[in-house]
Amino acid sequence: MLEVDLIISGEKALLLDTGNTCLDRASVAIKGDEIVAVGNTDTITKQYQAKKTISAGNALLMPGFVNCHTHAAMTCFRGIADDLELMDWLNNYIFPAEAKNVNKELAYWGSLLGAAEMIKSGTTTFCDMYIFEDETARAAKEAGIRCLIGEVLFDFPSPNFKTVAEGMAYTKMLIEKWKDDPLVNIIIEPHALYTCSKSLLDEVRELALAKRLAEDNHLPIGLHLLENAAEKKQLEEKFGQGAVSFLKDIGYLDEHLIAFHCVHFSETDMRLFAEHGCKISHNPASNMKLASGVAPVPDMLQAGITVGIGTDGCASNNNLDMIKEMGTAAKLHKVARLDPTIMDAPTVVRMATIEGAKVLGMEKNIGSLEVGKKADIIVIGLDKPHLTPLYNEYSHLVYAASGADVDTVVINGKVVMENRLLLTINEDEVMQKVREIAVRVKQSLKK
Amino acid sequence: MLEVDLIISGEKALLLDTGNTCLDRASVAIKGDEIVAVGNTDTITKQYQAKKTISAGNALLMPGFVNCHTHAAMTCFRGIADDLELMDWLNNYIFPAEAKNVNKELAYWGSLLGAAEMIKSGTTTFCDMYIFEDETARAAKEAGIRCLIGEVLFDFPSPNFKTVAEGMAYTKMLIEKWKDDPLVNIIIEPHALYTCSKSLLDEVRELALAKRLAEDNHLPIGLHLLENAAEKKQLEEKFGQGAVSFLKDIGYLDEHLIAFHCVHFSETDMRLFAEHGCKISHNPASNMKLASGVAPVPDMLQAGITVGIGTDGCASNNNLDMIKEMGTAAKLHKVARLDPTIMDAPTVVRMATIEGAKVLGMEKNIGSLEVGKKADIIVIGLDKPHLTPLYNEYSHLVYAASGADVDTVVINGKVVMENRLLLTINEDEVMQKVREIAVRVKQSLKK
Repeated sequence: MLEVDLIISGEKALLLDTGNTCLDRASVAIKGDEIVAVGNTDTITKQYQAKKTISAGNALLMPGFVNCHTHAAMTCFRGIADDLELMDWLNNYIFPAEAKNVNKELAYWGSLLGAAEMIKSGTTTFCDMYIFEDETARAAKEAGIRCLIGEVLFDFPSPNFKTVAEGMAYTKMLIEKWKDDPLVNIIIEPHALYTCSKSLLDEVRELALAKRLAEDNHLPIGLHLLENAAEKKQLEEKFGQGAVSFLKDIGYLDEHLIAFHCVHFSETDMRLFAEHGCKISHNPASNMKLASGVAPVPDMLQAGITVGIGTDGCASNNNLDMIKEMGTAAKLHKVARLDPTIMDAPTVVRMATIEGAKVLGMEKNIGSLEVGKKADIIVIGLDKPHLTPLYNEYSHLVYAASGADVDTVVINGKVVMENRLLLTINEDEVMQKVREIAVRVKQSLKK
Repeated sequence: MLEVDLIISGEKALLLDTGNTCLDRASVAIKGDEIVAVGNTDTITKQYQAKKTISAGNALLMPGFVNCHTHAAMTCFRGIADDLELMDWLNNYIFPAEAKNVNKELAYWGSLLGAAEMIKSGTTTFCDMYIFEDETARAAKEAGIRCLIGEVLFDFPSPNFKTVAEGMAYTKMLIEKWKDDPLVNIIIEPHALYTCSKSLLDEVRELALAKRLAEDNHLPIGLHLLENAAEKKQLEEKFGQGAVSFLKDIGYLDEHLIAFHCVHFSETDMRLFAEHGCKISHNPASNMKLASGVAPVPDMLQAGITVGIGTDGCASNNNLDMIKEMGTAAKLHKVARLDPTIMDAPTVVRMATIEGAKVLGMEKNIGSLEVGKKADIIVIGLDKPHLTPLYNEYSHLVYAASGADVDTVVINGKVVMENRLLLTINEDEVMQKVREIAVRVKQSLKK
């Protein structure tokens, strides 16, 4: 018998490997942070002896979800302003609320609340852009959730920096501080093309290239891109060419680029992204709620672009539930194209797991249940009226389940939630702290 | 002190009365099946003494959801066939599965599973169309859930009747059998204009008129209407006029008509519906998943039509969660119109409660928390990361919550779920029965 640290067993497992293997009576054996075996429960339990076993019964094992785009600390602004015109929403609510309230404390507690919500709905890795990201990294580390985080950079001051130079210095600090961390990874994140000058964009690219060369580091660049029609028009006027062509000219188009949204993407944009191996995070709930438009995701996939799914932040969603987001993604494109066969359930589940891992450049380590990968595993209980009967696991995940069906979560080999109980986060304390912050946020908007 | 049967208290209450009152520290006092007081907890507990009290703590009280269109027993086909062309889906999966498997047993257990799922996600009243509806009525009665049910009628045989005459006789039997029931109400349901001859439609109308006259009974008529573009075209060719004009000519347009879907509705159709007080059930998830199109709901509301929300059946959704459905309704129209201000959260919550009650003709009894109404009340626990902080109750319901957040459900004064525990349904038994049925369904499709 080989000794392992943990064996998790359930009636079903979706591996999300190349062949979309679905196992009955499945077990995963974990040693340290790594998956050492995946297979039939009888076989695994004959070969391996575990310090801890989780026998989940009538449950589905699968890789954790990869949330490709969010602003975790914005949980503090969840529901503060909805159903408004974009400019009213931004200028009269979100920007003033941020300017008056975002500090290290908000970033830390908001991120920790976001981590709690994400773990409780099965997300094991998230890609984050916000302010004071060192606090987000600290919160993620404490929560035991994997992340790819970047300080938002733009030409004007943020609550965290007065000048571009300070923003760049902060980003460099993040890269150094977290470079050997098993959970926290860093991305450089210029906010968008309408908020960043070419000189800032050049500086970002130089930093990324230098670090990649020096440290054989992936170090991706992420930015919001063509989220709505007004932005597309504005950028075309500014550049005298399309935004994606401009990105090509300044050397941004490569396999390390992650673009968020890409709602108003032309065929040329898609061709350029496909040719250069650029990645996209699709955030359908946010695009719907803010009335941004419908990204041409079926065409992106057809063009061979790697597309993951993100929730965006809590001001524009207002939740971080990747299971909800999958349902939204699957249904939105069907009705937009009047074609019920597109964005089928297996495609969407892959986008929320292994394809998302590829978007973040982490597919060697996460995104599927395969030997040698990091143990990021979730357990979804199936003994529920709304998940009965079971004909098709993918359909259940996309069209019937919700985040609350996730019972147990393992990240990097560590059990961070068991039977809905968070083991790394004091949930009551976090909620209380954020409620206190919310009182101040509300006050600040009245002034 | 006045004696009552039940007092429920929580931190917040949304009454969904005319003024959309939101109370802090709220209590509802219930005597028998009726709400006798709604107000501040201190006031209520000074005036009333209850046999049972439910102190829900940091929770939101509100009227239960009204699901305006479903096929409850189709839970048995949940996930059997998805992501397919409409005709492939119907002809090769749904119709054969129904023809070979639908019987009283399936209708009963499938409906009971649907009732369990609906109660667990906060629905207290549902409007149902299917086969062997007497079994659905029996299941609903046992589950203690309010319903408006009708046997589906069409020109061809169903598993329950060989001729139209038998179908009509079954409907008359339902009307007689359930006429004095406190929970079960009957609707006459010709399936749709493309499946029902004019003579069947005439017979239905005569029956409804006769019964309404004789018994001062509401007795609505419900039918699927203009769900997709092909149906619209087919009906125009068949009638030589629009479907709604045809309905007008045969005397169907009145305040007792409930039309399901109405996706391909013209301005003329809306004007006619508004003029005659006809009602609509909007079923956005089904319309998206089947790629039917986007119903012009903002225009319908503008025209003054009463519109409720329905989940449709589990073959085309695949769940019965009205909270999910609210989120879908709010976001779909924003992106379809590129206007983030339409279908705001309070409008959508009203559609899922009091407006739904109006659609079913039950607004005098249900749909809001008001003295004199039947006690159909749900309790939503707020002590959860994804519902923290709380700036706006409506936003939380529509954009952040899910069905699993419903903790406790009271229908007609009776507690049918307390702290997620169903008190009227043996959940394990129901799931086991439906799993056994599903094995046979699967087998039948292989032949």
